[in-house]
Amino acid sequence: VQISELVQSSGVPLARVKFYIREGMLPPGKSLSATRSDYSEEHLRRLRLIRSLTEVAGLPLSRTRRILDILDKPEGPVVDLLGQAISALSVDTEDFAPSDVTPVDAYPRARAVIELLGGRYEPRMPALAQLEYALIAVEEAGMSATAERLQTYGPHIWAIAEAELAELPADDPTAAVERAVLGTTLYEPVIAALRRLAHQNITASKR
Amino acid sequence: VQISELVQSSGVPLARVKFYIREGMLPPGKSLSATRSDYSEEHLRRLRLIRSLTEVAGLPLSRTRRILDILDKPEGPVVDLLGQAISALSVDTEDFAPSDVTPVDAYPRARAVIELLGGRYEPRMPALAQLEYALIAVEEAGMSATAERLQTYGPHIWAIAEAELAELPADDPTAAVERAVLGTTLYEPVIAALRRLAHQNITASKR
Repeated sequence: VQISELVQSSGVPLARVKFYIREGMLPPGKSLSATRSDYSEEHLRRLRLIRSLTEVAGLPLSRTRRILDILDKPEGPVVDLLGQAISALSVDTEDFAPSDVTPVDAYPRARAVIELLGGRYEPRMPALAQLEYALIAVEEAGMSATAERLQTYGPHIWAIAEAELAELPADDPTAAVERAVLGTTLYEPVIAALRRLAHQNITASKR
Repeated sequence: VQISELVQSSGVPLARVKFYIREGMLPPGKSLSATRSDYSEEHLRRLRLIRSLTEVAGLPLSRTRRILDILDKPEGPVVDLLGQAISALSVDTEDFAPSDVTPVDAYPRARAVIELLGGRYEPRMPALAQLEYALIAVEEAGMSATAERLQTYGPHIWAIAEAELAELPADDPTAAVERAVLGTTLYEPVIAALRRLAHQNITASKR
């Protein structure tokens, strides 16, 4: 199809489509003449993914690009790809993104929690920075995340994460990474809203 | 203590303290002379709460004020207060806040989910708008929140919410509302980060 149709089907404005092609995030169409190119179903699928990552999941361009890179060069086993993609996510904590030189004790609160829950502590896991930051906010409000509360959270959240990962297609690495990235991001607000509804439901039922 | 000490202990700048007094969010100090007033431990506690709600939990002023109003006139049983306070929260969906005239079918996706989970559907529960919005985002990304996935989420999230509500002090309505409001907001990022860490842990353990 022509670029105008691609714009129409994807809902992504022409200027942005051209930007993505220029930036190498979307492959160019097959050249038909000096002014016309042909775009395939693959282009449409890719554009929709970019739109979901940027507009729906709210990822900055830099992280969107990293995820596309992983999808384009899916090297190694699926679990490695998933690990890389999930690492590339960590929204909201760009300034806290751990690096190769992250000291082992960079996230003391998060470390204590992960060890309490029997998880593995690896300072380079980006969600550690996110957890540390969230725990600092709890402290600043004069509350404390008690071991009891965290031990209540742990098994439930691990069970949710297990089920989510089990749902990923095992035979299609690209699709698995795509779904993992979108799923991690897009179900976060679903879970938050469900928790609030649970509070409202439980409170209402006691009235 | 004097206002300067209040500023120092709370970490809230003087101009803002004066603003909160002018707006009736913080009671004025006990007048000692034309230019001096005395502030108590209660003032400090209140200021810290306002700071937590606005800066840490990120609530807009309007919602902070509604929660303070509920705390100041705790009428009715604790569960009613909790219900009101939790309703006053719903961040991120100001534009979607339901009103008295919200039609019964305003949130079809959220309704289907809540009924699937055996919860009570009341169109005025603000978290419904938040859930509907989150489910639309999932759809827009070309995914669908399957019944299986939601039925996996449901019991775990309900168990988390039950434990959280059970931790609230039963004999002090004001403290219960305060903790419920802060807890709902501040533990949301903790749960999100734990879920990402669970993904990373589970993926890493399969490598």
